[in-house]
Amino acid sequence: MSGRHFLQIPGPTNVPERILRAMDRAVVDHRGAELPPVVFEIVEGLRRTFQSGDGAIALFPASGTGATEAAVVNTLNPGDRVLAFNSGAFSHAFAEVARRHAVEVDEIELSWDRGVPPDLIRDRLRADADHTYQAVLVVHNETSTGATTDLAAVRRAMDGAGHPAMLIVDAVSSLASLDFRFDEWGIDVALAGSQKGLMLPPGLGVLCIGERALRRAEEVTTPRAFFDWRPVLKEMERGYFPYTPATLLLYGLREALRMLDEEGLLRVFARHHRLADAVRAAVRAWELPVQCREPAECSHTLTAVVVPEGIDSDAVRRAAETHFNLSLGAGLGRLAGKVFRIGHLGALNDLEVLATVAGTELAMTVAGLRVPVGAGVTAAQQVLLEQLLSGSR
Amino acid sequence: MSGRHFLQIPGPTNVPERILRAMDRAVVDHRGAELPPVVFEIVEGLRRTFQSGDGAIALFPASGTGATEAAVVNTLNPGDRVLAFNSGAFSHAFAEVARRHAVEVDEIELSWDRGVPPDLIRDRLRADADHTYQAVLVVHNETSTGATTDLAAVRRAMDGAGHPAMLIVDAVSSLASLDFRFDEWGIDVALAGSQKGLMLPPGLGVLCIGERALRRAEEVTTPRAFFDWRPVLKEMERGYFPYTPATLLLYGLREALRMLDEEGLLRVFARHHRLADAVRAAVRAWELPVQCREPAECSHTLTAVVVPEGIDSDAVRRAAETHFNLSLGAGLGRLAGKVFRIGHLGALNDLEVLATVAGTELAMTVAGLRVPVGAGVTAAQQVLLEQLLSGSR
Amino acid sequence: MSGRHFLQIPGPTNVPERILRAMDRAVVDHRGAELPPVVFEIVEGLRRTFQSGDGAIALFPASGTGATEAAVVNTLNPGDRVLAFNSGAFSHAFAEVARRHAVEVDEIELSWDRGVPPDLIRDRLRADADHTYQAVLVVHNETSTGATTDLAAVRRAMDGAGHPAMLIVDAVSSLASLDFRFDEWGIDVALAGSQKGLMLPPGLGVLCIGERALRRAEEVTTPRAFFDWRPVLKEMERGYFPYTPATLLLYGLREALRMLDEEGLLRVFARHHRLADAVRAAVRAWELPVQCREPAECSHTLTAVVVPEGIDSDAVRRAAETHFNLSLGAGLGRLAGKVFRIGHLGALNDLEVLATVAGTELAMTVAGLRVPVGAGVTAAQQVLLEQLLSGSR
Amino acid sequence: MSGRHFLQIPGPTNVPERILRAMDRAVVDHRGAELPPVVFEIVEGLRRTFQSGDGAIALFPASGTGATEAAVVNTLNPGDRVLAFNSGAFSHAFAEVARRHAVEVDEIELSWDRGVPPDLIRDRLRADADHTYQAVLVVHNETSTGATTDLAAVRRAMDGAGHPAMLIVDAVSSLASLDFRFDEWGIDVALAGSQKGLMLPPGLGVLCIGERALRRAEEVTTPRAFFDWRPVLKEMERGYFPYTPATLLLYGLREALRMLDEEGLLRVFARHHRLADAVRAAVRAWELPVQCREPAECSHTLTAVVVPEGIDSDAVRRAAETHFNLSLGAGLGRLAGKVFRIGHLGALNDLEVLATVAGTELAMTVAGLRVPVGAGVTAAQQVLLEQLLSGSR
Repeated sequence: MSGRHFLQIPGPTNVPERILRAMDRAVVDHRGAELPPVVFEIVEGLRRTFQSGDGAIALFPASGTGATEAAVVNTLNPGDRVLAFNSGAFSHAFAEVARRHAVEVDEIELSWDRGVPPDLIRDRLRADADHTYQAVLVVHNETSTGATTDLAAVRRAMDGAGHPAMLIVDAVSSLASLDFRFDEWGIDVALAGSQKGLMLPPGLGVLCIGERALRRAEEVTTPRAFFDWRPVLKEMERGYFPYTPATLLLYGLREALRMLDEEGLLRVFARHHRLADAVRAAVRAWELPVQCREPAECSHTLTAVVVPEGIDSDAVRRAAETHFNLSLGAGLGRLAGKVFRIGHLGALNDLEVLATVAGTELAMTVAGLRVPVGAGVTAAQQVLLEQLLSGSR
Repeated sequence: MSGRHFLQIPGPTNVPERILRAMDRAVVDHRGAELPPVVFEIVEGLRRTFQSGDGAIALFPASGTGATEAAVVNTLNPGDRVLAFNSGAFSHAFAEVARRHAVEVDEIELSWDRGVPPDLIRDRLRADADHTYQAVLVVHNETSTGATTDLAAVRRAMDGAGHPAMLIVDAVSSLASLDFRFDEWGIDVALAGSQKGLMLPPGLGVLCIGERALRRAEEVTTPRAFFDWRPVLKEMERGYFPYTPATLLLYGLREALRMLDEEGLLRVFARHHRLADAVRAAVRAWELPVQCREPAECSHTLTAVVVPEGIDSDAVRRAAETHFNLSLGAGLGRLAGKVFRIGHLGALNDLEVLATVAGTELAMTVAGLRVPVGAGVTAAQQVLLEQLLSGSR
Repeated sequence: MSGRHFLQIPGPTNVPERILRAMDRAVVDHRGAELPPVVFEIVEGLRRTFQSGDGAIALFPASGTGATEAAVVNTLNPGDRVLAFNSGAFSHAFAEVARRHAVEVDEIELSWDRGVPPDLIRDRLRADADHTYQAVLVVHNETSTGATTDLAAVRRAMDGAGHPAMLIVDAVSSLASLDFRFDEWGIDVALAGSQKGLMLPPGLGVLCIGERALRRAEEVTTPRAFFDWRPVLKEMERGYFPYTPATLLLYGLREALRMLDEEGLLRVFARHHRLADAVRAAVRAWELPVQCREPAECSHTLTAVVVPEGIDSDAVRRAAETHFNLSLGAGLGRLAGKVFRIGHLGALNDLEVLATVAGTELAMTVAGLRVPVGAGVTAAQQVLLEQLLSGSR
Repeated sequence: MSGRHFLQIPGPTNVPERILRAMDRAVVDHRGAELPPVVFEIVEGLRRTFQSGDGAIALFPASGTGATEAAVVNTLNPGDRVLAFNSGAFSHAFAEVARRHAVEVDEIELSWDRGVPPDLIRDRLRADADHTYQAVLVVHNETSTGATTDLAAVRRAMDGAGHPAMLIVDAVSSLASLDFRFDEWGIDVALAGSQKGLMLPPGLGVLCIGERALRRAEEVTTPRAFFDWRPVLKEMERGYFPYTPATLLLYGLREALRMLDEEGLLRVFARHHRLADAVRAAVRAWELPVQCREPAECSHTLTAVVVPEGIDSDAVRRAAETHFNLSLGAGLGRLAGKVFRIGHLGALNDLEVLATVAGTELAMTVAGLRVPVGAGVTAAQQVLLEQLLSGSR
């Protein structure tokens, strides 16, 4: 198929050629003198991205799921009790990883159409007078529904409850796209992957770890080897790793962090906000609901569009892929067939979003979901134009 | 600037990553055993693209202008008379190259809003009863105006006039995008560059040469060294070159020809036709004229859009580049400031064209040229949708 | 430092530009239609490489250590007893991973100068009349010492003992370089990484799994999530993964397997044998011992050279890196400072080996280890020349 | 064939991956805002490399032969008389390009085993009392023989003769490898290509032009279009080109100039000197003559090795290519079959030279030219070791 592919799933995202080029190089001796400066620059860059002054950064040659496992096995013992929330496929998977390692998980069932209500956390923690919960597991931006949880409010809720549970956060589809304040929000462990806002191919799990979690890792007895972060942190201090690192991804990550730095995190967040506004204006013009029912919680990195009864959302995706070289995300779990997801995160600009909206519009029509052709893209253009002309950009 | 750049000038075109990758490799010994099979495959592929059974293919490490010079110095003597047409910046430059080499050029001044009228050629040749014209110089697709000359009709006109002049054709912005029939149209020399329909970066001049021009090159006395095609053709028969070839571009060209072959030339032509229809529908929706006034002659590879009096077309281009990561072509020569040009050739698909139209629309608005936002992209979408649903694609 | 780097550690190995190029591409939708054919081709190619007719292939986005963990947690329960051998740093690490997961490991201490003696295995298993050992853990090619264990003999020993223990093999530095016969040798699980004979950058863990181990994985209760191979195998059957795969490495792996196929596995093994012979001839000419004392067990993928008392082997490595753009492997564990290791595996040819030997010779001299300059490289040349002239190549 | 290719012809040279990577990128709008800073940086870097304060830099998308043509057509009229020297295939070709453009060339026949004797130039110019010679054409480093002409002495000879002829120099295989002093040596035009010391693939012709030649170009009437440097210089002042430039090569050239700057020109020259000494020590150990009979004139960028009567030098090349993945240069013109040429220029280090020498040694043996195996590489190692230990490096 001629021309460029539009990879608009909610991650992996489009890898900029500058990052691809940084990885297209000879592998270095991972025990030689070249690696440490790369590692140190990465650690500093990731801290900036997590907005943490001295969080410990651990890297694993793994997917985001691997990072989740690392967060769990280093902080929780078999039999420990945690509070988790089933507000989407990934928050459920988070709970499941803990459960697999014999953690007792109170997984609160929620509707899959909004973030985790901070009040609910406060109430649950207040009710736990004996402080039996070791941790609260929260997904910052639920990639299956496009709903964001307000972590500042979660922190206030936990403080309000006076509960000492750790706050462990999945930041896979938010880091480097949404404002994420590790220190300010009192997060104990945040985990992410390379393939979303960090604009890399998949293959790296990234963690930012606070003081309390570091201490906790010295005590827990959960069996772990590969995902034990202690030797990783120890070696990374010297610029090395206890395993053979995914060297080329490290060069890519360094370049990604330089790019984020050049654009400026605030501008990165503003760009994601603007592009999300454009997409949502399009969806409104199509007169289709988005899966996230709370406007204030709608994600700036992806939008899950609900298709009418009788239409298979996968038919839209297939039409987009077959006719328009456009990949959209599928509905996951209980949303299979009911929503399709537009990813608008990572390296992305106005024209790519307009192309995506225009292509989605055509794909819907081909798939039998009649929307007024041009309405969505026009609405998206207007949002972008207004922001530009108002000088807010 | 985040995301991908939209290089929608009328060439160089976007180089597919598959071609970039084919060139991202170690240089080979240009006198070793590896090169000949590459050269032979290229020669066959170019012949298919020129639609020539046994035209001689010559490659020069040069730009399209270099290929023009090669066409001139190998076929024309100082003092020879040729018929040329100033119907745009590139047809004028064609004449100028000949003039520089002391050829006597009858350069017919035409309005820059259509192709060369075949009747005009017939009349001029008929009037040349003594057959003083050695050649007719025609640009197939005038890149500065977006007007195509009907070469089949030109051939009929020349035959109708019973004139033996050579037909030398600039196919720079048509080859591999528009139907081009070297043999059927009785072309003597056709010249092109690597950076348009062939989807490569600039740096290669390409010629297809007929029997008569080959013989002519043996006779002409015009001083030439680098652009003498005789040693080139002789060495290329063995798979080599008399100069150090641009080796990596050869690998890229091989890949480009394979891609054209996989898509199929007919489908390549149809795709350019379809995308051009979409762009022109957008321009109509903007209620702006295109520079080419003859609908049947409007180019399928680029569209020159005329801006209203009082608007500087370069302001549109600057807005597109500054705000939307979109490069449009400038008005050239007497069209400077009066038109901007949208390139829609090479590796390109529906969504890239829709993004280009959407971005152009916004850039015009920013530049003060008020068009109904969304009208153009909607019109373009409708064209693409209709073609898809009607099964004509 | 000008010119190319010689990465002659025993892995990661030099990644051929053809493989780098295959990975330098846009990321695809890992749930789209493009991935399955890639996955299926990889599975077939890996089976060929493992020499297994229908072994189940599981891929993890992880290092070789991750693959080790996958082998352990899917086949062994806490409290299970296994037989392991400390014959080098990696065989010890293998035992340690099992121990970390609460497996009871009988780790037989061996001298670090040869492979595991099959007789020892036979005797130990015979002595285990109650068949308490669930598995025998063996490293095929111990990367820290350069000693290979004869797996065919191990299989005979296990059969001779009539013991049903599983045979779990670390093939990290042997797969795709040394003859490895999964089916013939009755291996239950073999694990490897991407960065050695497979010529890729690090980042992929690879397993080949037999029928018995598959059944065993259904029964074991060891906590596991990321490294649970059951969902991986299930998804891979359809060409997908339960996690976000390291997409670009998959494209690289496909290319690597094609290259192995083009060269032919037998020729790949013969090349490694020839190059190892050349290196060892050089070491003999230097009158230095190799760490592996059993000539028949000396590895064809790396050579650990023992430096005389009073010399620090790391000084040789530093001289090589500083002055000659050559990376050699360090002595690991109890061999630190006592040996340096020359990697001669993966994509490698005669001239690269000669350069490595010549550079090592100079680095030794610079580091104060006086060897007759030229003696080693001359001896290596003679080996290569003889093999060439005798037609054995 | 496994492993890396050793491209040790005297150019094109091995392109460092860093430069390949700089060229592996999207093409930019050659009339947009991105190009000028690239062009300006290139102009400054090339001036440094030519050692010229304000020489005009012109770039052509062409081979070195194209640059030669540009030097000729811009400075010489038909009928002008020039002094040239046939001391090798490229000095002869230089004369031939002038002759093709109707220049009257006094091409002095020399033996092909040394540089041009400055005394000869002085005598010839003194004898030309009427100053009929417009120019002296000299090849700095004759790539076919490996002999360098002493340009400082040539300048003194011309000054000594009090002759105003221009000095036009082919620096193709010397620039960026050998000391080249455009200003100090009073050179009027120097020409080079991208594919030698500049470490790029072929495809760019480079000229440095002095004040007098610039004025001369305004007067000469030689027909020229593509190679007319006037519009090129004019556009390049603004950072653009009158033709479509080979954009990606420009990015590569910028990177190459940065690399030269980082290493430092003096160190680049010293490295070439050292590597050449090593190669020549090897040839002496083989007891074979080099084509350049004047030791002081032996080139530091390539060595032409004379094979004994009865041996075909091409058999050595074929053996090197077939068995050792090593490309050596052929004997050209009257040296065909009599010499092979070892290129040792561009991005190159000690180990690559040792590999080349070792491989050449083996290839000679295979081709029936018996040399003591190991003698050459040992001699080369000793040279490199001595220089290292003596601190001269």
